[in-house]
Amino acid sequence: MSTIGKVITCKAAVTYGPGEPLVIEEIQVEPPQALEIRVKITHTSLCHSDIHFWELKDGPILFPRIFGHEASGIVESVGELVTDFQPGDHVLPLFMGECTKCKNCKSRKTNACENYSPSGRPGLMSSDQRTRFSKDGKPIFHFLGTSTFSEYTVVEHGRLVKVNPLAPLDKICLLSCGVSTGLGATWNTAKVEAGSSVAIFGLGTVGLAVAEGARIAGASKIIGVDLNNEKLGKAKTFGITDFLNPSEYDKPISQVIMEMTGGGVDYSFECVGNVNLMQTAFDSCHAGYGVCVLCGVVTDSTSVFSRHPVYFLGGRSLTGTLFGNFKGVTQLPNLVEKYMHKEFQLDEFVTHELPFSEINEAFRLLLDGKSLRCVLHVGNT
Amino acid sequence: MSTIGKVITCKAAVTYGPGEPLVIEEIQVEPPQALEIRVKITHTSLCHSDIHFWELKDGPILFPRIFGHEASGIVESVGELVTDFQPGDHVLPLFMGECTKCKNCKSRKTNACENYSPSGRPGLMSSDQRTRFSKDGKPIFHFLGTSTFSEYTVVEHGRLVKVNPLAPLDKICLLSCGVSTGLGATWNTAKVEAGSSVAIFGLGTVGLAVAEGARIAGASKIIGVDLNNEKLGKAKTFGITDFLNPSEYDKPISQVIMEMTGGGVDYSFECVGNVNLMQTAFDSCHAGYGVCVLCGVVTDSTSVFSRHPVYFLGGRSLTGTLFGNFKGVTQLPNLVEKYMHKEFQLDEFVTHELPFSEINEAFRLLLDGKSLRCVLHVGNT
Repeated sequence: MSTIGKVITCKAAVTYGPGEPLVIEEIQVEPPQALEIRVKITHTSLCHSDIHFWELKDGPILFPRIFGHEASGIVESVGELVTDFQPGDHVLPLFMGECTKCKNCKSRKTNACENYSPSGRPGLMSSDQRTRFSKDGKPIFHFLGTSTFSEYTVVEHGRLVKVNPLAPLDKICLLSCGVSTGLGATWNTAKVEAGSSVAIFGLGTVGLAVAEGARIAGASKIIGVDLNNEKLGKAKTFGITDFLNPSEYDKPISQVIMEMTGGGVDYSFECVGNVNLMQTAFDSCHAGYGVCVLCGVVTDSTSVFSRHPVYFLGGRSLTGTLFGNFKGVTQLPNLVEKYMHKEFQLDEFVTHELPFSEINEAFRLLLDGKSLRCVLHVGNT
Repeated sequence: MSTIGKVITCKAAVTYGPGEPLVIEEIQVEPPQALEIRVKITHTSLCHSDIHFWELKDGPILFPRIFGHEASGIVESVGELVTDFQPGDHVLPLFMGECTKCKNCKSRKTNACENYSPSGRPGLMSSDQRTRFSKDGKPIFHFLGTSTFSEYTVVEHGRLVKVNPLAPLDKICLLSCGVSTGLGATWNTAKVEAGSSVAIFGLGTVGLAVAEGARIAGASKIIGVDLNNEKLGKAKTFGITDFLNPSEYDKPISQVIMEMTGGGVDYSFECVGNVNLMQTAFDSCHAGYGVCVLCGVVTDSTSVFSRHPVYFLGGRSLTGTLFGNFKGVTQLPNLVEKYMHKEFQLDEFVTHELPFSEINEAFRLLLDGKSLRCVLHVGNT
């Protein structure tokens, strides 16, 4: 029986307050309105950004809320004026949307769409400033315009991309955030060249995807820095040539890296979201031309990156990236094709798989540093 | 009568303590040693870096000292092993030297020669850790390896470049620091493209050379920011399209620029050396792709550039430049040729000319913001 045009009742993992365990609830999902699409989520993984915002106490109070932004799914129905998606299309949601029409979308330099930014509409759909989720008539807030911790979600037109239907949905879900962020930080933001040296701070999914990107780009030295020696195995898989645990040195790790590389690396990447580590990553770059790319999100509003201007004057650069500077709508289909042609490793990031009902266990695995990515099987495909 | 191989007694402007007036003295200049060259300085201008270091109280105490690094001259004699210079060559001294052999010189990314850095050898020649200047047998310290406030100076081989002898020495002296710094910040560091928007903070020689570089690169909007409305005339000469005096606005000038440009400029340049202004310049850049280039030298060791990491995460970059990232030995001859072919304005930076004996007046003009460049005629040419 078709669900098109009807309210769907389905399961979702709802959060009722900062840091509180998620509750699997029966919720109602409205049909998509004009320029919206309703998607049956098949798989969702979770990412540190979900945890950051789930824990966040000093942001706007938007509860109950459905988190989740790294996922894959199948179009269930489309709203009015949507002509380029149809039911059955395989899709990835995009927390960094792409309208393709604004000044930023037309610029080759940025993926920060002016109409579908991550921070643009906290918790509500833009057309009517309402939610499409509810339980017993009470609204449930969206998250990053994606809210993939639900069997069905509704997204705006610019926040969805159609991909090759032959691509395995239980793997390519990782391309809608973490892995793309790391690959893109290397290829699009830093533009790592063959023969260069790289240092990566934090060997979670983003950090290891940076390593994978650097390996493919031909970097000759890829230094991985992490406090957890258990990361060493995966680090080798993704091309890390030198593993450093700062707790095993009695001098600053930036100094160790400076000495190892004759003055600092060409490129460094901070993949945790810790401002002290950002400064360490910056200090580890070569003074004359090193580029430090910030990939980690800092949600603490009082953190400050601080350095004397002379650190920059010689030519060191500091920059950052969101979603690896990938434009989701125009570039992700090609990234999926590259995966299909085995041009990069993706399956290796999936360390755990669980049914959707065990989402709290997936949170625990990530918080404890036990998983890279735990893929949750949400709907039957 | 030839002076080759002999000690030369000549006039120099000697500084005896931080911020003290310069004293024109008769000094002794030794012959050049191996891989050194003695140069008859014909013209020297002065630059804010001279003033910064002249005033500096918390650096190493190196007095008496001969300052000066922006100059032109003629080779008087060469030391042993010098085969590519000969007496009579027209030359520019290089405070950022270029050995052409070290790792950095071989890199296309930096001009920070490992053997002839500005900070490498404070006040002494590297071969014997002695000075070539003295008065009554007491040593006088060098400055930046150049010390051009003297009728004769001795420089190391990597700190000198031979240029077209037809080029007017009273103009091209400016290319050995300030004007090259500004042009290079635009062309080499930021790589400003046609149609882009630029904001320049501080309209001294470096700032106006940034404007000139941006104008030549085809920037469509060049915003000049200065507290001194008298800069407006020269600003127009060098292509400034919009002049802003922050004291005439009741909101932050970065906000004014954000509003003028629909979200910030493509490129901003700080050309003063003030850390608050650096932060303002950074804030004036577009969040998604703006690049802020620090050109001003901050000598206060306690200054800190501070911003929340989120300012970088969207893609804003912060970097810096020394000598506009020009490699002096290999690139300055071509820059002189470009000047000879009228490819950029240079004569327009010379606002004053004075005899060498009036060097304290030149300091005053620069300190009071009355001059862009005051060229001092040092020797008879």
